[in-house]
Amino acid sequence: MTSTAQQEISVSSSSGSRPVSKDAIINLDHGDPTMFESFWKEVGEAADITIPSWRTLSYFSDVSNFCWFLQPEFAHEARRLHNLVGNAVADDRFLVIGTGSTQLFQAALFALSPSDAPEPMSVVSAVPYYSSFPRITDYLRSALYRWSGDASKFEGDAYIEVVCSPNNPDGSIREAVLKSSNGKTIHDLAYYWPQYTPITAAADHDIMLFTVSKLSGHAGTRVGWALVKDVEVAKKMVKFIELNTIGVSKDSQLRAATILKAISDGYERPDVQTKPGLKMFEFGRRLLSMRWQKLREAVKASGIFTLPDFESVHCKFTGETTEACPAFAWLKCEREGMKDCADFFKKHKILTRGGGHFGVESNYARVSMVDRDETFDLFIERLMSLR
Amino acid sequence: MTSTAQQEISVSSSSGSRPVSKDAIINLDHGDPTMFESFWKEVGEAADITIPSWRTLSYFSDVSNFCWFLQPEFAHEARRLHNLVGNAVADDRFLVIGTGSTQLFQAALFALSPSDAPEPMSVVSAVPYYSSFPRITDYLRSALYRWSGDASKFEGDAYIEVVCSPNNPDGSIREAVLKSSNGKTIHDLAYYWPQYTPITAAADHDIMLFTVSKLSGHAGTRVGWALVKDVEVAKKMVKFIELNTIGVSKDSQLRAATILKAISDGYERPDVQTKPGLKMFEFGRRLLSMRWQKLREAVKASGIFTLPDFESVHCKFTGETTEACPAFAWLKCEREGMKDCADFFKKHKILTRGGGHFGVESNYARVSMVDRDETFDLFIERLMSLR
Repeated sequence: MTSTAQQEISVSSSSGSRPVSKDAIINLDHGDPTMFESFWKEVGEAADITIPSWRTLSYFSDVSNFCWFLQPEFAHEARRLHNLVGNAVADDRFLVIGTGSTQLFQAALFALSPSDAPEPMSVVSAVPYYSSFPRITDYLRSALYRWSGDASKFEGDAYIEVVCSPNNPDGSIREAVLKSSNGKTIHDLAYYWPQYTPITAAADHDIMLFTVSKLSGHAGTRVGWALVKDVEVAKKMVKFIELNTIGVSKDSQLRAATILKAISDGYERPDVQTKPGLKMFEFGRRLLSMRWQKLREAVKASGIFTLPDFESVHCKFTGETTEACPAFAWLKCEREGMKDCADFFKKHKILTRGGGHFGVESNYARVSMVDRDETFDLFIERLMSLR
Repeated sequence: MTSTAQQEISVSSSSGSRPVSKDAIINLDHGDPTMFESFWKEVGEAADITIPSWRTLSYFSDVSNFCWFLQPEFAHEARRLHNLVGNAVADDRFLVIGTGSTQLFQAALFALSPSDAPEPMSVVSAVPYYSSFPRITDYLRSALYRWSGDASKFEGDAYIEVVCSPNNPDGSIREAVLKSSNGKTIHDLAYYWPQYTPITAAADHDIMLFTVSKLSGHAGTRVGWALVKDVEVAKKMVKFIELNTIGVSKDSQLRAATILKAISDGYERPDVQTKPGLKMFEFGRRLLSMRWQKLREAVKASGIFTLPDFESVHCKFTGETTEACPAFAWLKCEREGMKDCADFFKKHKILTRGGGHFGVESNYARVSMVDRDETFDLFIERLMSLR
């Protein structure tokens, strides 16, 4: 297993920035979803928000709801969007709002771990797993839960298995690998939206996590939500968020509600749009599809790497049969003797995240596919020059 | 010591709500700062904010800053306001933004506790201490730190002492009670603003926490900030917030910057105000001063309770010599045989927070002074009727 230090986010001067010249550092280490900026610029005022200075001063949003810091507008728009897309069962589920899905992941760990157990609960996920899971689980050295690595190698009866589907980093569709009746699952469905993957069914798991970051690109807004079946689990998640941050920014919730409304209106209410016909999932799918095509060509031309293949599947939302276009490319260096893929890229001033962060060999590297056009295009150009 | 369960926030159907009738439940348990609503309604558009849909999508705010998720506008306005008020040394200090000061408190515990110590660091505060400190310290059963109660009774060399000044719940001005060279301090200065207490000097401690909630009333915005002397401590706090919530809502930071700007403009740039002459600290001071006068009269008339007395002190900001007008009233039941003050109030449908939550006897109760006028006035009316 890789060291904890290795699994941390490394923010550098190129993070979130545009490359300034042809030979600039290209930072595709993070999944910074800035590719959506151009869509929102098209949408214009319909999705802007104005917040009067006297609004939402109170800590409380809706004390009649078990999640007392949840703005009802947001809950309404989240359920509306799930019903439109058909990616998850959202009605008759408890909706918990969080400061991004990272906070909700921790809230779920807190909710699923007995408060008085002699040993911490084991938290596992099948490799390659999202690089932040180990560190987020262990940074406070909690006696409630601890990271226990690859789910496929776990032996035991009591555990929390995190199932990320489509999976970060490799885009694969996943199910839980462990099946004990004492086991619990957290489904991270951040990427289960039609721009990334065909929607095959409405997911209906015990705890499902979503985030505005990967849905619409509004990562800076720090809003995620969980759909939870068991009210007691949902209440414990609310308790965590109360203790951790006394709720979630109301400004962000209001803004996220406006964004989600604009997405749904694009399909259901084109009459209220500033420019009719702006459909976000089509925008995302079209752009990612072109990028994946360019990437596959460049990868093939290089002769150095391979990429995962994705089966064509019928998407119930678009009605088309399409391949997945994941938010990350999971590149494998195939050249003999080239053991460190991220290091190879780094020598060519391309920042990626190496396999070690995801619990696998370092001949893998993850590359963000959701950055701005100019960054992605420069990446392809440089990739084409690698031999 | 009180049980952990007792120290939790209890959200009820009356939390954050206006009382609907003369005999309604009056909820003054939380410090929900809605008294500021009327000020911001006066200010009007000058402090409203519009956020275009394409703005702040990125996780990153300013990668040239060690606190890469800090919006520069907010840092600028926070320092400007400290310089205007003179309550803290803000220049040449590291500013860390947080999802409220609750998150920053946890970030400071994380930063001040060695990551590999065999025993958790002891966290202490002199009684009566803020009711959330014990639970926030212990809810994850961290091996890094643990709540160790009253600072005055602590024996040992290594500790983190939390110094809240003016103190929640009793409004007293405080200094650290422990003096070991191995000890660390966190100064919670949420209430060190001129509406609550005379400003006697610019505070200059190792870690100072502030929050927009108690400054301007925008609790729903969930923004706090820390001023930190040691860059390594500040960096560890940033790491905590990165792992906990991947930064802080940019919408909230932008809104908070607009609010802070409007406050400072009220003093320095009356020309840019919609209505000139709106000075927030004067509004707050005037309102709280009237409320404290009414409260002292009602308390005196009741013959049941006493309140702390505050010395008149010269305020460098207002230039006047005034008493403190704390955000909470700390009532002591003096009637013989009446042991549970919060319980007595509850029988009269007034929700307060009992002394047990603050590490002291239950003949004390804390009452919020920062709710809306109608709630406060009804409280005084009901208090006058108690015999």
